[in-house]
Amino acid sequence: MKVVKFGGSSLANGTQFKKVANIVLADKQRKVVVVSAPGKRNTDDIKTTDLLITLANEVIQGNNKENALSQVVERFADIVEELNLDRGLLSEIEGHLKDLIASYKDDPDRLLDALKASGENQNAKLMAAFFNQLGEEAHYVSPDEAGIIVTDEPGNARILPEAYEELSKLRDRSGILVIPGFFGYSKMGHIVTFPRGGSDITGSIVAAGTEAEVYENFTDVDSIYSVNPNLVEYPKEMKEITYREMRELAYSGFSVFHDEALQPVVKKKIPVCVKNTNHPEAEGTRIVSDRSHEGLPVVGIASDKGFLSINLTKYLMNREVGFGRHLLEILEGEGVSFEHTPSGIDNMSVILRDHQLKNGKEERILHRIRTELSVEDVQVERDLAMVMVVGEGMYQTVGVASMATAALSEAGVNIKMINQGSSEVSMMFGVDADKADLAVHSLYHAYFTPVKQ
Amino acid sequence: MKVVKFGGSSLANGTQFKKVANIVLADKQRKVVVVSAPGKRNTDDIKTTDLLITLANEVIQGNNKENALSQVVERFADIVEELNLDRGLLSEIEGHLKDLIASYKDDPDRLLDALKASGENQNAKLMAAFFNQLGEEAHYVSPDEAGIIVTDEPGNARILPEAYEELSKLRDRSGILVIPGFFGYSKMGHIVTFPRGGSDITGSIVAAGTEAEVYENFTDVDSIYSVNPNLVEYPKEMKEITYREMRELAYSGFSVFHDEALQPVVKKKIPVCVKNTNHPEAEGTRIVSDRSHEGLPVVGIASDKGFLSINLTKYLMNREVGFGRHLLEILEGEGVSFEHTPSGIDNMSVILRDHQLKNGKEERILHRIRTELSVEDVQVERDLAMVMVVGEGMYQTVGVASMATAALSEAGVNIKMINQGSSEVSMMFGVDADKADLAVHSLYHAYFTPVKQ
Repeated sequence: MKVVKFGGSSLANGTQFKKVANIVLADKQRKVVVVSAPGKRNTDDIKTTDLLITLANEVIQGNNKENALSQVVERFADIVEELNLDRGLLSEIEGHLKDLIASYKDDPDRLLDALKASGENQNAKLMAAFFNQLGEEAHYVSPDEAGIIVTDEPGNARILPEAYEELSKLRDRSGILVIPGFFGYSKMGHIVTFPRGGSDITGSIVAAGTEAEVYENFTDVDSIYSVNPNLVEYPKEMKEITYREMRELAYSGFSVFHDEALQPVVKKKIPVCVKNTNHPEAEGTRIVSDRSHEGLPVVGIASDKGFLSINLTKYLMNREVGFGRHLLEILEGEGVSFEHTPSGIDNMSVILRDHQLKNGKEERILHRIRTELSVEDVQVERDLAMVMVVGEGMYQTVGVASMATAALSEAGVNIKMINQGSSEVSMMFGVDADKADLAVHSLYHAYFTPVKQ
Repeated sequence: MKVVKFGGSSLANGTQFKKVANIVLADKQRKVVVVSAPGKRNTDDIKTTDLLITLANEVIQGNNKENALSQVVERFADIVEELNLDRGLLSEIEGHLKDLIASYKDDPDRLLDALKASGENQNAKLMAAFFNQLGEEAHYVSPDEAGIIVTDEPGNARILPEAYEELSKLRDRSGILVIPGFFGYSKMGHIVTFPRGGSDITGSIVAAGTEAEVYENFTDVDSIYSVNPNLVEYPKEMKEITYREMRELAYSGFSVFHDEALQPVVKKKIPVCVKNTNHPEAEGTRIVSDRSHEGLPVVGIASDKGFLSINLTKYLMNREVGFGRHLLEILEGEGVSFEHTPSGIDNMSVILRDHQLKNGKEERILHRIRTELSVEDVQVERDLAMVMVVGEGMYQTVGVASMATAALSEAGVNIKMINQGSSEVSMMFGVDADKADLAVHSLYHAYFTPVKQ
């Protein structure tokens, strides 16, 4: 049995719905279908979810909502008309949206969550209806009915452990089951959405709960590439990578598969296959628990911007038991999480995502560092990027670091920080943000361009 | 005014005393002389301090102490006879040692400290007597009289801030002042020794207290070398390095100048000049606050063994605010200090000196990590060495890391960890301990052998 998830661009219009139906029906094992809201039909289009957020904001701000509401309904109308589905579905959608607005109009967080989720929810109903129209047994299954019970944090739902047992019962149901992605229900009965990557999370949870043989994730690329295709022409396709490799890449800017979405399948060791709805014959990329480590140990290069470093200096710092703990406590006190803490003998740095230091947090943290830690010097270094070279097996390979540093040196990129050794999967370089693309480019060519080998 | 300190080999016998006197008298600015205990006269010889430790242990264990006592007195007799000093000095020394033993026989810690310190103490008296014999005004000044007031921790004295004011009065005294190194007096009036590098600490404290124009530290080498001379033939001499560079090198195995001894002069920015008693014409190495950064930014390569790494893995670790702080708290709870904490996304390592994990500490720490942090995996990796490339200015130089990693790669050394970026002065590589010498060798040749340039 397979769980198949389709992203927004795979369900953007009727033509895409037909491709999805063909893919699902081509393999009897594809029993559970998780769907996103309709995505962009072309580059200038607006995603349904964004239309729904606009609608929510109009309601919250007390503006006239009719225009925003009709834009949402029109997106679904476009699909209903192209597929010649029952027009009654549209009035149901409109009625449903109005009900949500009426229920939650005094609770902006819940209104936003409920409206955001309705893009997936309505699309799942249309998809089930389309299967029925094709003469297939198919059922819309709401997350509630499926057993997707989550924590009650609007916009940041986490699955509750007891959900998995309920989900396992889906295996016994007949027909194709179409489940909307992106949200679950709290125990109180509220709609609560998952964080970024939400529909991928639903698919992963359902695959884990039903112990699927594979979790197929259909998107609009043939494969996950070894590097951002916007930076390198014709980048190498990845055939197979491990969960850990994917996690490191996803963390640092690979937007194909959100890292949190992997967690449920990792535990059950269910392979994930990323495939292209528009080109289903392509092999795709398999994300697995273990792979063979033949050839070059590097699988991908990624980068992420928006970091800063707080650099501390204090003579004989390393003699002070408790210094590092105290520093981390100061950050924790402001709810700030850190990425790395490289330390020398009399120096320690904390690297963190810079958006965290707003609203006076930076000043308060620096003040506490100066007064409580009696440092000689504390400096904030901004506009840093982290560039990551990822691949299992690197750890035991002589010369991997050398190739990277040589490539960066040749490209004239000054390495501000190197982090290697904590992870057996990756090696990380801190560089100035304006050199990040150049760094990625040079590293990609060092590891993947055949002449260099 | 200069403070001049002479190490043990510079004062091992009468011939060395004469060299010291010549050096001091050659420059009227050399007013304060800090002396060590007599060191080895040849490679098979035993240092006076070690003879004194043997004496202390005989007393503590209740053994016959006469043989050990006479060995100590003979070391001083050797000097007295060669310089033809007053024989009465020897009975004074013997009487003094017996007094110490009588006073402290029931307090082993204090007995050990008092006897260890007497090597320097008696040598200072002999040195002052020798200056007098040469017709020079010179005075033995006990640390008590000089104002070296310290904390009351046997073997681990720290200078008290009020000492500096008292020390400044030494400037006003006439003649050459000979002060024994290695110890001070607590407020209770006890003799308390400094930790390792003790006489260097005394010299540095006195230089800071008297605001000397330079602190000259005479030892038995012409210079501090860029690398351990036991590993590389004819290593490059350092003409000038900064305090920060010296500290990083001293920390990782450069035994010429102990790191803690620098602290007092660093605060006052007093230059240190390391020179050779046996070859005072040689320029020596100046340790200064700032230097020009011409040429290659690397000044030295060092290594230190005896490290281990505790490696933790936990999926989505980086989302857990407080994880790092909690880990460091566990270590702190066992009084264990760490060197570095490289962290990946789902991994964190703590590198520490392995001698700290005795007496069940390792088991307790691992147990707490497993239970309190719920990690998926925790492994201890042993027999690691840290290899350090030191030099200010490296930080802003493209290609320094590249030279290092290329050299290690060519030498077949697998880099287990790279730590760069926290310190602007050094770059550190974790390697297997049995590859440390090879690593140092290859790095030295990469940075210092002209053909490579």
